[in-house]
Amino acid sequence: MNGEVIETDLLIIGAGPTGLFAVFEAGLLKLKCHLIDALAQPGGQCSELYPKKPIYDIPGFPEVLAGDLVDNLMKQIEPFQPGFTLGERAETIEKQEDDCFIVTTSKGTQHKAKVVAIAGGLGSFEPRKPAIDNLEKYEDRGLVYMVKNPEDYRDKKVVIAGGGDSALDWTVFLADVASEVTLVHRREEFRGALDSVEKVQELVEADKVRLITPAEVMEIKGDEKVDSVIVRHNDKARRMEEIECDAFIPLFGLSPKLGPIADWGLEIEKNAIKVDNTLDYQTNIPGIYAIGDVNTYPGKLKLILCGFHEATLMCQSAYQRIFPDKRYVMKYTTVGGVSGFDGSQKIAEKAVVKKISQKEAVDE
Amino acid sequence: MNGEVIETDLLIIGAGPTGLFAVFEAGLLKLKCHLIDALAQPGGQCSELYPKKPIYDIPGFPEVLAGDLVDNLMKQIEPFQPGFTLGERAETIEKQEDDCFIVTTSKGTQHKAKVVAIAGGLGSFEPRKPAIDNLEKYEDRGLVYMVKNPEDYRDKKVVIAGGGDSALDWTVFLADVASEVTLVHRREEFRGALDSVEKVQELVEADKVRLITPAEVMEIKGDEKVDSVIVRHNDKARRMEEIECDAFIPLFGLSPKLGPIADWGLEIEKNAIKVDNTLDYQTNIPGIYAIGDVNTYPGKLKLILCGFHEATLMCQSAYQRIFPDKRYVMKYTTVGGVSGFDGSQKIAEKAVVKKISQKEAVDE
Repeated sequence: MNGEVIETDLLIIGAGPTGLFAVFEAGLLKLKCHLIDALAQPGGQCSELYPKKPIYDIPGFPEVLAGDLVDNLMKQIEPFQPGFTLGERAETIEKQEDDCFIVTTSKGTQHKAKVVAIAGGLGSFEPRKPAIDNLEKYEDRGLVYMVKNPEDYRDKKVVIAGGGDSALDWTVFLADVASEVTLVHRREEFRGALDSVEKVQELVEADKVRLITPAEVMEIKGDEKVDSVIVRHNDKARRMEEIECDAFIPLFGLSPKLGPIADWGLEIEKNAIKVDNTLDYQTNIPGIYAIGDVNTYPGKLKLILCGFHEATLMCQSAYQRIFPDKRYVMKYTTVGGVSGFDGSQKIAEKAVVKKISQKEAVDE
Repeated sequence: MNGEVIETDLLIIGAGPTGLFAVFEAGLLKLKCHLIDALAQPGGQCSELYPKKPIYDIPGFPEVLAGDLVDNLMKQIEPFQPGFTLGERAETIEKQEDDCFIVTTSKGTQHKAKVVAIAGGLGSFEPRKPAIDNLEKYEDRGLVYMVKNPEDYRDKKVVIAGGGDSALDWTVFLADVASEVTLVHRREEFRGALDSVEKVQELVEADKVRLITPAEVMEIKGDEKVDSVIVRHNDKARRMEEIECDAFIPLFGLSPKLGPIADWGLEIEKNAIKVDNTLDYQTNIPGIYAIGDVNTYPGKLKLILCGFHEATLMCQSAYQRIFPDKRYVMKYTTVGGVSGFDGSQKIAEKAVVKKISQKEAVDE
């Protein structure tokens, strides 16, 4: 934390599909957005939990992979140049005298905005941690629960633990980047896409990945940072083995928690934030909205398409809050096009008005 | 009208994007749908007014042509086999003793359903008619204001009037079908896509279309049906010319009118139907819902994406009305897939649980 405060018109907490689409609708109203997400990349669950899974109920897509939907949304909002604070969880919110909110993350990054939209989905995804002593000592000192930048592991020795898609996929990816990859799993069976399971098998056979199963990481060693892990082979002998490594990455899944937002003074019902669905999806605190799966109201459905609608109505209300004296007249994108903050311009071709000559006239 | 009544679970009036997507959401709830539309094809304005125009604010599509959006929605709802009554306007609604509604169209077709969802957009698109006497006499007897089935004009003599996209596009299309196509327009300038204007010019030069400009059709002749039209050349001589034809198709645009729906006893505000946005977009008449551009409520935005949300919440409420004793548990399509009424099944690939052999084991 360097004391610098990120300022924006609309601060969006949660960079899942709903939060991303809010950037587009805000952009049409010329509002700048900044997004905070606890995950390392935008897309929320769609990117983190099921990027390769098809979704069938996004209107206009008979079938779309969750990851592709996120890519499309990122492309759609590109003209509006949103800022991102990723891999940091929104922790506290404070209202300033100038009516703005200051939101501070788990890493101390501060954000200032007149309007805050919580698009937090099921909550911030907290990694499930292994039952090892002194975990905190090593966190961000070789021990991480998610991979933010694979290049951090270039030519390093990495131990990954886990048996699901994340463990498999990062094993495959880092096999090409790290100097050494060891995958530890407490069972011999892995659960994931067939393709990923097969790739790991190939890497193991080609000696590019060392696989230790059934086994568990019991201990981390190192003075300042992770130097090695102690693995217990879960066979009869229960043999202990020390594996030298620069990084230990347990990937045991994520569990969503409403987290610190629950203490922001918002009205909570059934682990979700109550909003005013009769108008603008505002919470009980004026200036704070909640959209998408994180909110609740009578008849609420936790569907992405509902989040899109909520985001759109929220932006109209946010605009009025930010510019109480301006009156916005909605223009359809089919008519007015889309003007990006980057100077880009999308607009439908206009009809031409053109004379068509008659045959007789042509012959003359 | 043959006295047969079309029965369905959910009757949707208006086959624009909102009405079409309602079929999908209803289908997930195992409700059968039938749609009525005054236009000759599904898609509403998107198909009729601007099929080639890009839309930029459909979530997940940085850009999509209106016609392609409709095609995608038709593909998305295909598994749910909706019925269509096209080219007929919903005229009257009557509540039966069994709590069902009977909706009758301009051509007398009757539809019966427990729930009616009006997805009527800006209203039914009524053709603008030319100022000619005795129009009614010839309507559907050679005089039509929209082309339903181009094959009706195979080897016929056709006179088209108008100067916009519809007139241009049908001139191009029918030039290949009809034995003779004459295009009459009161100005020499046409307003449309450059491509269409150029194609008509080529057809005129190739003698495949006769163009008469500036000119107007003043009169229709024929005993039982259209036999000819009288065209006045709008030059100094004001010469009259009789053109023999089987069909006269004035394409002067469509103007949306709420139409007969305005007399159904629904609460109307600003030419739109008031609905309960706090829950399910139901009108003041229980069992009749209004979704998409046709409805109004505080903060309403006439956007396609809002219609999708409204359609979805409406379907949940409709389900409870149709099956008051059943309790529906929503399953995500990512988890439960989509089961079509045609026996089709879409479902995400399941994760495999598979053993990965260790290198040592392989070597043994």
